[in-house]
Amino acid sequence: MTVTAAQGFLASGVTAGIKESGDPDLALVVNRGPSRAAAGVFTSNRVQAAPVRWSRRVLADGRVSAVVLNSGGANACTGEAGAYDARTMAERTADAVGVDADEVAVCSTGLIGVGLPMDRVVAGIATAAGALSSDGGTDAAVAIRTTDSVHKTAAVSRSGWTVGGMAKGAGMLAPGLATMLVVLTTDADASGALLDSALRSAVRTTFDRVDSDGCMSTNDTVLLLASGASGEVPEAGEFAEAVHAVCLDLARQLVADAEGASKEIEVVVVGAASERDAVVVGRSVARNNLLKCALHGEDPNWGRVLSAIGTTDAVFDPDRLDVAINGVWVCRDGAAGEPREKAVLSGRRIAVTVDLRSGDESAVIWTNDLTAEYVHENSAYSS
Amino acid sequence: MTVTAAQGFLASGVTAGIKESGDPDLALVVNRGPSRAAAGVFTSNRVQAAPVRWSRRVLADGRVSAVVLNSGGANACTGEAGAYDARTMAERTADAVGVDADEVAVCSTGLIGVGLPMDRVVAGIATAAGALSSDGGTDAAVAIRTTDSVHKTAAVSRSGWTVGGMAKGAGMLAPGLATMLVVLTTDADASGALLDSALRSAVRTTFDRVDSDGCMSTNDTVLLLASGASGEVPEAGEFAEAVHAVCLDLARQLVADAEGASKEIEVVVVGAASERDAVVVGRSVARNNLLKCALHGEDPNWGRVLSAIGTTDAVFDPDRLDVAINGVWVCRDGAAGEPREKAVLSGRRIAVTVDLRSGDESAVIWTNDLTAEYVHENSAYSS
Repeated sequence: MTVTAAQGFLASGVTAGIKESGDPDLALVVNRGPSRAAAGVFTSNRVQAAPVRWSRRVLADGRVSAVVLNSGGANACTGEAGAYDARTMAERTADAVGVDADEVAVCSTGLIGVGLPMDRVVAGIATAAGALSSDGGTDAAVAIRTTDSVHKTAAVSRSGWTVGGMAKGAGMLAPGLATMLVVLTTDADASGALLDSALRSAVRTTFDRVDSDGCMSTNDTVLLLASGASGEVPEAGEFAEAVHAVCLDLARQLVADAEGASKEIEVVVVGAASERDAVVVGRSVARNNLLKCALHGEDPNWGRVLSAIGTTDAVFDPDRLDVAINGVWVCRDGAAGEPREKAVLSGRRIAVTVDLRSGDESAVIWTNDLTAEYVHENSAYSS
Repeated sequence: MTVTAAQGFLASGVTAGIKESGDPDLALVVNRGPSRAAAGVFTSNRVQAAPVRWSRRVLADGRVSAVVLNSGGANACTGEAGAYDARTMAERTADAVGVDADEVAVCSTGLIGVGLPMDRVVAGIATAAGALSSDGGTDAAVAIRTTDSVHKTAAVSRSGWTVGGMAKGAGMLAPGLATMLVVLTTDADASGALLDSALRSAVRTTFDRVDSDGCMSTNDTVLLLASGASGEVPEAGEFAEAVHAVCLDLARQLVADAEGASKEIEVVVVGAASERDAVVVGRSVARNNLLKCALHGEDPNWGRVLSAIGTTDAVFDPDRLDVAINGVWVCRDGAAGEPREKAVLSGRRIAVTVDLRSGDESAVIWTNDLTAEYVHENSAYSS
């Protein structure tokens, strides 16, 4: 159910002492091949952490033999020293597991602007290399947690091959206070081009549509590594579907574990003139603090939904907008529809459906409510 | 100090019974002339309340003889019935004060999606017309409050003429849960063209740069009425400056009274390649929930500032960004600068300065922190 579900991968997770808590904070994932093909998607934030800059270069060649990940420090906004530290992590990992440093991706997560305790990181890499195991995937998933309340893993098997993965984070490809890191593995014998297209397609409609708090990290990374150990060459469509399924599973786990949230909100936009319009409207609704507060208070405040739609440039007629909350069409034709009392919001999951009545395209954005606990967690974090 | 500071204006504020609380909820402002020139700026939200649609048409002719305003209901997303009600408010006001209905602007604020109790509104208009007075400006300012903890007024006098005004709201030209309504008056003999240019210029750099929670109302309206009663034709530059001063004063009062806020945050962006870049960066920083939580917790978390800058398309080099918090340059060259402990955030006002080091343009955006009280107020509002 994790990065070691596919054949050909070893993983480990150890306590390097980066976190003061003594919780596990360093993980390795090693691809034993025979293939080393890989693809990656990174944050679109222009302020990018040193490990992201490093890993982008590694992925440019489409080959990854190992990934070293740490929690407890983001190594972002750390200048030249940070770049040196990210490179050192790759080099020490390469030495420890016997691969080239330019085939080692690096992922970090934690507070921005603070350097890593490199003596501990280096020692931790050696320890983690000694702990590598074909069932070490869960340990790795545990070691990359920051404010995650649970570790997140998923896997699916198809025609003789498997895709598995792990994630950390509480948000989106632009997540909350901490980064979203995802490592996916497969034993399918997939080409770099197939890995790349499957990964980009899956990310676009899963992690990219999770919008916990509208903020975007400097460290977000999603990697897909193929060992080819199954000897099976996957059919492209089936492979893309499998990667999508694992990404969707992990994305839903991120939303379910969002910091301080009490509701999981699914914003479904239908009747859009284009998929782009559907995404723009969904994101605007999902980012509306007032609506997120109202849903926290179990108030089906459709006026705030309309107000959020109205800030976009999507195709719609304000007098022909319909909105349902948990299946009750509380707004019809831009005005009050069924009685709002009929919408019951006491459960953890809330569906907000917007019908733009301007076409046939649709999109789903997942978000959370805004709570006093969110404020508390995020105002107390760096102290 | 309010809409009756300028000669030629009468105002009143009464309890019509729209609010269940029994607080004042209906106001009139009447221009006795001789001029009736006017200008208006409205929400850019495409979902616009019935009174906004009505008042836009009134202002198209550049003539306003009276403004009727109510709190206790936004008359937004109310369909044809709402349009009829807005028109009725204008007609009844016109009858009561002896002007044409197509010279009566209408402003409403309160919950979206609920119709107004028109019997009470109509009776209130008659009561308010009977209470009109040349010192009724404060009563009017009190009657337009919703969640405002104080009423907001301002005035300046220049070369023989005065500009005064009142405001309600706790946000921006895209304010918080409730709308921003502003009525400005002047006894200068200003042309419609001068009123329009002075108002647009002032709004652009005051109300438009207040961004309390990133949300945008369906009802925002800013009106400027000239009576010409002073007999003085103002010098254009001096007039624009005076309108700007009153708008800035009112805008700062909105920020100071933002719902549930404990900090007033000034985001100053300097070194921008264009004013547009400065505004885009300032708004991105001001809307970052994570930063707003951090500042609430008095944590000078400059990493979240950089993360917000990085989401924009402004001209900058990530490795040459400087950030000061309350005057302490905690980030230099995109990395840690002076010790964060030196930034003291215990006061109510916090200044975040971003130097993009890419040009000479600048902008200021005003916002607030994100607090548990904000969540509480906005999750409990419509119940």
